[in-house]
Amino acid sequence: MGDPAGIGPEICLRLLNQPDVANACVPIVFGDAGVLRRVAGATGIAFQTPVLREWNDAIDSAHVLDLRTLDAEVVQPGRVDARCGEAAYRYVVAAIDAGLSGRVAAVSTAPLNKEALHAAGHLYPGHTEIFAERMRAKRSCMMQYSDEVTCSFVTVHVGYDEVPALLQPGRIVDVIELTADALFRIRRRKPKLLVCGLNPHAGENGLFGQREEERFIVPAIEQARALGHDVTGPVPGDTAFTPQARRRYDAVVCMYHDQGHIPVKMIAFESAVNTTLGLPVQRTSVDHGTAFDIAWKGVANPGSLFAAVRLAIRLTDVSA
Amino acid sequence: MGDPAGIGPEICLRLLNQPDVANACVPIVFGDAGVLRRVAGATGIAFQTPVLREWNDAIDSAHVLDLRTLDAEVVQPGRVDARCGEAAYRYVVAAIDAGLSGRVAAVSTAPLNKEALHAAGHLYPGHTEIFAERMRAKRSCMMQYSDEVTCSFVTVHVGYDEVPALLQPGRIVDVIELTADALFRIRRRKPKLLVCGLNPHAGENGLFGQREEERFIVPAIEQARALGHDVTGPVPGDTAFTPQARRRYDAVVCMYHDQGHIPVKMIAFESAVNTTLGLPVQRTSVDHGTAFDIAWKGVANPGSLFAAVRLAIRLTDVSA
Repeated sequence: MGDPAGIGPEICLRLLNQPDVANACVPIVFGDAGVLRRVAGATGIAFQTPVLREWNDAIDSAHVLDLRTLDAEVVQPGRVDARCGEAAYRYVVAAIDAGLSGRVAAVSTAPLNKEALHAAGHLYPGHTEIFAERMRAKRSCMMQYSDEVTCSFVTVHVGYDEVPALLQPGRIVDVIELTADALFRIRRRKPKLLVCGLNPHAGENGLFGQREEERFIVPAIEQARALGHDVTGPVPGDTAFTPQARRRYDAVVCMYHDQGHIPVKMIAFESAVNTTLGLPVQRTSVDHGTAFDIAWKGVANPGSLFAAVRLAIRLTDVSA
Repeated sequence: MGDPAGIGPEICLRLLNQPDVANACVPIVFGDAGVLRRVAGATGIAFQTPVLREWNDAIDSAHVLDLRTLDAEVVQPGRVDARCGEAAYRYVVAAIDAGLSGRVAAVSTAPLNKEALHAAGHLYPGHTEIFAERMRAKRSCMMQYSDEVTCSFVTVHVGYDEVPALLQPGRIVDVIELTADALFRIRRRKPKLLVCGLNPHAGENGLFGQREEERFIVPAIEQARALGHDVTGPVPGDTAFTPQARRRYDAVVCMYHDQGHIPVKMIAFESAVNTTLGLPVQRTSVDHGTAFDIAWKGVANPGSLFAAVRLAIRLTDVSA
C-alpha cells in the first residue's frame, strides 16, 4: 500500500476497482483497512473489497490484508510521519515474507516516502534494498520495463565516478542473463538484447576512455553469446535508443543509471514499470513517488500501478 | 562539400536545387565542381549552379567555389582515399578562412571521413577541432539543436572517467552563456535553460557521488543567474527530457556527451543540427557521417544539411 500519507492507498483502491486486473490475478493489498476506509471517504473511490485480519490460504479473490499497523486517525495526508514510515515498512516486509513462503507469487509496491522511512529508523535508500537484503539474492538487477523501451542496469544508485570500477565482466553477464530470462517470460520467445558501451561512441576503438568496452564489456558479451543469448554490442549509448534500435531490440543493457533512465523517462514517463530481476519472488514497482502534494484527493493516476501489476502477472505466469 | 567519396556532394546538389534555402541566403559550396558534375551524372540530380574559380565579392546568388583540389576521375564512391581526405580538409580550411575574413557569414559542413582525413595526415578527431584550432576561440561548446530538444555540452569527446575533473564552474558558466546567447538569437527572446546534474538523481543531496552538483554546478548556476540568465537546476538527467520539461525549457546544458546525445538521437534523429557556439564564425554541421554505403546513389536524405543551413541563417540573421 506504500506510505499511508501518500497516493498509495488511493491507487490501491483504484486497482481493486479495476475488473481486468482483478480478473487476471488475485490481488491482495497489504496495508491498513482503516486508512483505506478514510481515503475512500475523502476521495469518493469505492471500497467494497473484503478485509482479512489474518492470512487465509483459501482465498481466491481480491482482498485487503489488514495489518493494523497504525491508528488511521493519526494519518495526515501529505505529511512526513515516522508512524507512516513504520507502517509502510511493515507492509513491505509482510509482503516479502508472504512471497518467500509461497503465499503470493509476486509483489508490486506502491510508493514509499524515504524521509518517513528513515524517521522510523529504517535507513534503506528504498524498496529495492529492503527486498535485496530480506531475500538474500545472489544476483539481481533493476529493469525498467515499458512497451516503448526496456532497460536493465549493471549499476544504478552509485555516484557517476564509481561506475567504471563496477563494470566487471561477471556482473555484466549476470545482468544480460537476468534480462534475457525476464524478456523471454514477457515475450514468450528468445529476446534480442543490445548492450551499451560506457564512453562516448562506445570508446571509438580506444579513442575515448580507458578501453572499458574492450576490457569489460566485450568479454561479457562474448561469454553471454557462448551461453546462447542473442546479444549485440557494445554500441554507443546514443545509438541504442533511436527509433530503429527500439523496433529491433527487446531490451537494452545499460552501464549506469542515467544511460537508461533518460530514455525511459523521456518516452515512457507514465507507463514504465520498475522491476527487480533475480529475486526469489518477482517484484515490480510503480515508477513514481508518494506525490504528497496530491495525496488523498482522488486525482492520482493509477496507471503505473496497473502496469506494475500487469507486468508481475506476465513475469510469473507459468501457464504459457 | 565534405568527403568527395561520401554523400556530401549529392546533398550539396540537393541544397542548391532547394528554392527556399537559396532564397533565404546566398549559398556557396566550397568543393570541386568536377566531382559535383560526376555525382550529378551518376544520380540524375540537376547541377545548374554557376561555378566560380576565384572568390568574387560581388556575387549575390548561389555559386560553387571550385577549389580544384583533385582530379574528379580518381574519386571512387564509398572508398576511403587519402586524396579525398585531403580535398575535404582543404574545403573546410578555405571555408573557415572565408569566414574569418568576413566573406561568408556562416559555415555549414557536410560529413568528413575521419579515416580518409587521417590518411591525408590531418590527425583531427573531426571538424570541430579544425574549427577550434584555426579560429583560436577563447571559449566554445557544442550544441545539438532541433525543434524537439536542444542540448549544449560542458564536455563532449572525452572518456567517461575524465568528465568530473572537467566540471569547473567557470566552464559551466561559459556554456550557459553561450547557450543563452544562441537561443536568444534563435527564439528572439530570453530563453529558459535547464542544467543537468552529473550523478543519478543529481546526487540526491550528496547521497550519490562526490557532491559535484554542490561543488561545481550550483555555483555556476548562481553565477549565471547573477548575470541575468534564466537558469533552472541542477536537475537529474532523467527528468530534464520528459515531455513536460521539453515543453517548458528552450535548451538543456549537459555535463557529458551521452547525457544529451541519447535524447537528441532518440527523438530528433533526422532533424538535429550540430553547431559550435562561441566561434568568431558561426558553424553548423550535418548530424550524420559520410554514409559510404549509399554514396553517389541519389538516395541520401539531405534533410540534416537543410536544417544545418536554416539554423545557420537563424543564428546569423541580424535583421531581426
